[in-house]
Amino acid sequence: MKNLVLVILVLLSLYGRAEELKSPNGLQKLEFELKDGYPTYQLFFNNKPVIRESRLGFDLKNEADLLSGFAVDGVERSTFDQSWEPVWGEEKSIRNHYNEMAVTLKQTETDRKMVVRFRLFDDGLGFRYEFPEQANLTYFVIKEEKTQFAMPGDITAWWIPGDYDTQEYSYHKTKLSEIRGLMEKAITPNESQKAAGPTCVQTALMLKSDDGLYINLHEAALINYACMHLNLDDQKMIFTSQLTPDAVGDKGYMQAPCTSPWRTVIVSDKAGDILLSHITLNLNEPCKIEDTSWIKPVKYVGVWWEMITGKSSWAYADVPSVQLGVTDFSKLTTNGRHAANTAHVKEYIDFAAQYGFDGVLVEGWNVGWEDWFGKSKDYVFDFVTPYPDFDVDELQQYAADKGVQIIMHHETSGSVRNYERHLDEAYQFMVDHGYHAVKSGYVGDIIPRGETHYSQFIVNHYQYAIEKAADYKIMVNAHEAVRPTGICRTYPNLIGNESARGTEYESFGGNTPDHTTILPFTRLIGGPMDYTPGIFEQDVSQYNPDNHSWVNTTIARQLALYVTMYSPLQMAADLPETYKKYLDAFQFIVDVPVDWDDSKVLEAEPGDYITYARKEKGTDNWFVGRTNDEEPRTSKISLDFLPEGQKYLATVYHDAKDAHYKNNPKAYEIEKFVVTNKSKFELFCAPGGGYAISLMKANDPKALKGIKKH
Amino acid sequence: MKNLVLVILVLLSLYGRAEELKSPNGLQKLEFELKDGYPTYQLFFNNKPVIRESRLGFDLKNEADLLSGFAVDGVERSTFDQSWEPVWGEEKSIRNHYNEMAVTLKQTETDRKMVVRFRLFDDGLGFRYEFPEQANLTYFVIKEEKTQFAMPGDITAWWIPGDYDTQEYSYHKTKLSEIRGLMEKAITPNESQKAAGPTCVQTALMLKSDDGLYINLHEAALINYACMHLNLDDQKMIFTSQLTPDAVGDKGYMQAPCTSPWRTVIVSDKAGDILLSHITLNLNEPCKIEDTSWIKPVKYVGVWWEMITGKSSWAYADVPSVQLGVTDFSKLTTNGRHAANTAHVKEYIDFAAQYGFDGVLVEGWNVGWEDWFGKSKDYVFDFVTPYPDFDVDELQQYAADKGVQIIMHHETSGSVRNYERHLDEAYQFMVDHGYHAVKSGYVGDIIPRGETHYSQFIVNHYQYAIEKAADYKIMVNAHEAVRPTGICRTYPNLIGNESARGTEYESFGGNTPDHTTILPFTRLIGGPMDYTPGIFEQDVSQYNPDNHSWVNTTIARQLALYVTMYSPLQMAADLPETYKKYLDAFQFIVDVPVDWDDSKVLEAEPGDYITYARKEKGTDNWFVGRTNDEEPRTSKISLDFLPEGQKYLATVYHDAKDAHYKNNPKAYEIEKFVVTNKSKFELFCAPGGGYAISLMKANDPKALKGIKKH
Repeated sequence: MKNLVLVILVLLSLYGRAEELKSPNGLQKLEFELKDGYPTYQLFFNNKPVIRESRLGFDLKNEADLLSGFAVDGVERSTFDQSWEPVWGEEKSIRNHYNEMAVTLKQTETDRKMVVRFRLFDDGLGFRYEFPEQANLTYFVIKEEKTQFAMPGDITAWWIPGDYDTQEYSYHKTKLSEIRGLMEKAITPNESQKAAGPTCVQTALMLKSDDGLYINLHEAALINYACMHLNLDDQKMIFTSQLTPDAVGDKGYMQAPCTSPWRTVIVSDKAGDILLSHITLNLNEPCKIEDTSWIKPVKYVGVWWEMITGKSSWAYADVPSVQLGVTDFSKLTTNGRHAANTAHVKEYIDFAAQYGFDGVLVEGWNVGWEDWFGKSKDYVFDFVTPYPDFDVDELQQYAADKGVQIIMHHETSGSVRNYERHLDEAYQFMVDHGYHAVKSGYVGDIIPRGETHYSQFIVNHYQYAIEKAADYKIMVNAHEAVRPTGICRTYPNLIGNESARGTEYESFGGNTPDHTTILPFTRLIGGPMDYTPGIFEQDVSQYNPDNHSWVNTTIARQLALYVTMYSPLQMAADLPETYKKYLDAFQFIVDVPVDWDDSKVLEAEPGDYITYARKEKGTDNWFVGRTNDEEPRTSKISLDFLPEGQKYLATVYHDAKDAHYKNNPKAYEIEKFVVTNKSKFELFCAPGGGYAISLMKANDPKALKGIKKH
Repeated sequence: MKNLVLVILVLLSLYGRAEELKSPNGLQKLEFELKDGYPTYQLFFNNKPVIRESRLGFDLKNEADLLSGFAVDGVERSTFDQSWEPVWGEEKSIRNHYNEMAVTLKQTETDRKMVVRFRLFDDGLGFRYEFPEQANLTYFVIKEEKTQFAMPGDITAWWIPGDYDTQEYSYHKTKLSEIRGLMEKAITPNESQKAAGPTCVQTALMLKSDDGLYINLHEAALINYACMHLNLDDQKMIFTSQLTPDAVGDKGYMQAPCTSPWRTVIVSDKAGDILLSHITLNLNEPCKIEDTSWIKPVKYVGVWWEMITGKSSWAYADVPSVQLGVTDFSKLTTNGRHAANTAHVKEYIDFAAQYGFDGVLVEGWNVGWEDWFGKSKDYVFDFVTPYPDFDVDELQQYAADKGVQIIMHHETSGSVRNYERHLDEAYQFMVDHGYHAVKSGYVGDIIPRGETHYSQFIVNHYQYAIEKAADYKIMVNAHEAVRPTGICRTYPNLIGNESARGTEYESFGGNTPDHTTILPFTRLIGGPMDYTPGIFEQDVSQYNPDNHSWVNTTIARQLALYVTMYSPLQMAADLPETYKKYLDAFQFIVDVPVDWDDSKVLEAEPGDYITYARKEKGTDNWFVGRTNDEEPRTSKISLDFLPEGQKYLATVYHDAKDAHYKNNPKAYEIEKFVVTNKSKFELFCAPGGGYAISLMKANDPKALKGIKKH
């Protein structure tokens, strides 16, 4: 009898009823159930399946896996509702509201425990694994995380190839079943790349179900853990997590108590809700920097596009090889094309000061660029020694006098150990010379060799650089680092990342016209991107006859990106002399802020178009931006987000009727209107086009005199 | 006709006559010859073959090899003769005297150049590869160095297994042809090991030819290059260099202009000449530290043997797991066996002060030892946080008051990145708290994973730690690092290394009785070893009933090691309470210096015995030491190295007639004699025994009253 009771109890725990969790508004529903000892979960939105029954767990190295043989050892439920104010962001205040269920699983045979903690928000799900302190599981090595995301059929995805070294790919919109066939073509060349498999794709992954659900899969709080990719079983349409291996093929070294990052499923029947979701931020820890007064959004210009196009060079001299500590750079002859020289940088500082930019990025200022790439050089840069024609002290004084900051540049060439060796000195150099922000770069294969850009060991490095920068009150904008996962909530000095195909690719063959209609649904889910918009001259060959690249957007759309590509760090990437030719359009870049009190999505469909309206931080001004794909479209928006009964001056920068990204990208028109919250706009969006609107509150109605009403 | 001349010229350069080089005394002869485009060399001593015809060159990755197709493009000859004074050493002045021949080789088809630079000393050969700056060879990756050392037959070797992670093996004396058969047995377990192949052995490799030549193969100036092993073709009896691979199997990343380390062949018909050779030091660069006044030899005791035997613990608490930054160590309960506590360390300081030791090593003072080993923990130590029972400030003051230094201990647990991250802070902590020397350790597998202890990447780390330490005026004694190669000439703050089976193994199962008769011929060729001699209590089980290890030497031999195992850093490794039981024998350790003006080898045969006489730095005192293998032997020495006409007080610490390392190791006798340079000694050496003699110049003859003449 006793045995029978035991058997029944065991059966109950193995095949126990599903544990259900609902979001605060009741629309999201999660079910957790042990099936034959395997932990599984399902997610529904408005009773429609989002994630079909999916398994959870891990393959471990040299010990039994954590996939099956589990019994439920306890279920804890709670509710959380709190608002917090980001140091910078899209909104002044962010509500963190979820219902939580923590399921403690016990693997009977091995007496090991694993907790799966689910947090269900109105806009989706976050869950993670937790390994409490326990006798039989302390140190363990992850062979693979086996988290499944079973899709509701052969649905549509906007994807880029899974890769352990780069996210710099163009997106493909296909059915899941079509990924395999397109993979080889999708893997375009990159300076460093390691493909993750024929059906493996990256997160944040944007999906759309046949019944109209928008689904986004990503992760939050990727700290000391390998970056997750998603490997598709394209028969069953099940994604399984695939972590980035280290040099010996291991996926993670763990010590309990510890947790995995959060796995996120943002879901809604409105595309705009995906864009406005704060799940990623909310699943990160609150800010750990006590005094954040030194963290400030930055609008900047830079000595950059002229090198990207090939007009100028990072390197000082045209010699095939240099050795730091050996080569006497003062004895080299300059190639005459070195952009980061004192006189030229002063021109950028003058321009920045004249138009109210906060900073000037200068790349190529420090010795080592002659042979910096692809040579697997360990000691490639020292981050503190300027070229002979770059006068650090003189420029520090000049910039300070003009009220402009110079932004530091640390290219590591992937030589991570070398960067860590110099990090303290490099940051101290910045402090000593008045630099407050650094753009770091990880171009090329990683040293130590065998590691990749997204392994636990290297992910740990990026975090190290961010935290150490905070000690020096330095803001970080890391390029080629792992894609962000909301860590900027905890460390808001991480003001930017690249981690996707940015504007530079407009000079490396071009981005697809729909690229910026996808990025906010994918890359930007994890955090802001230093996309470096603002290119007004599309023909790159004018700078470099060998470069036949074409910038695939209209000027009007370039303006829109300052609103649609949210970032506290925005560059006006084109050359000052170019902007001086189009000062009327440039005025939008001058006016647009980089920090916001509120954000609204007016129109959105991934791959087609996105229209945002955002309210400037601390003012009543609003800004609207619209990015459009390769189809000509008409955007219809209402200004009902404006406050009741107020008049605004709307300056509309839009594509002319005959504009086209390929053959007529400069055809923009600027119109001014007096508007209220009753106003509506119907605006033509050219292929690869869009528009931007500034809405300045007219405190003095006389200011609006002569402007037609709308 | 023109073509014919060309062909003849090419043939001449491909099959040109041998280029010959002789040592200053004419006894060493090197022949270099291109054979069918392959560069080859041979070495003779006194017309006897030492190295038979051997090839030179490299396999490169992703490009043509550098093995054949060469023509001689020039031969430069020169002579060098200069003496230099080491900061510390076996002799006051070292003569660097050689004839040099630099052969520039040009690979015709690829238009690439490689120089082989030979330096022929009276005691042997050094040669290296140099890659001058050139158009067609700048960055290259070494797949394998293919330097051959063709042996003069199936000769005798004293070898340990080739291994990319450890040299902590016992030596085997066999014919070359017997290596393969013994390899498996020779690879005894170690905390971190990666065997290099069935016929692969380590350098320094000691050999003896059938016609009585002593030959030693090693390398000098191993800087930013992978450690060399020697792989035997046991049919042809040819060793070929086998470099340590990195995580992806590559052997070296090079950028011309650059060089390989020196490959050395020390050779003589007298074994003692091998011991006295300074080729390794002479092939290193002169001292690069300007002010060396802070570099001082150190005799020390330490909180160490009690942990090695298991009597005490490094760890403060008996808990299975800790996390730095998370665990509150002040809340842990001490296990009561933590040796590095303030009161106990004071006892060591008292002892050191009483007997004139310079320093006290303290291991286990800093948090993290609870789970430090074998867990692949990245953030395993921070090197600055003491355990709650170790009062840094109080001990700093206490030691200073007693005129004793505390020696720092940095165990890295192989987590090299973590050490580099903390290195500046750790060294600064030392400066702030009066520490002048650090013992560093690399126990266990290396992190980053996939790298090994001897790869180029990690060799580069040890050098980084040494050079940075010099900036802080810190002396380094690195354990488990790559075996030394004479770098202490250039950086004399490298005062010690382990890199072999040290005295600790007497508590881990024991060393063979002949171990210390081999180490000076092998491990010590590269530089001093922190062997930590002076163990007077052989029965380890008295400290730890679970440990049945036995210290395989007599007490007399332990004293001898202070003379036979040259090091500027010498430990009296046993417990103070033990020394207090044998104060008469301990007196030799008190008297023996750690720096010398002159050194002589009185008797030597590898694996059998070594007898050294050394003159104390700056005094007229001499010290003699004799280490003996497992055979009972009689040592016959003359004191003719003493100055003419001077009387000395000889205190002889020797094995009693019935002494034996196994069953009667404490049977020593101490006798005093008045001696001159005419005196001779015949002294019994027990199995595993030996003797030590101090020879104090009697300035005041009255001091010798009552001492019998000899």
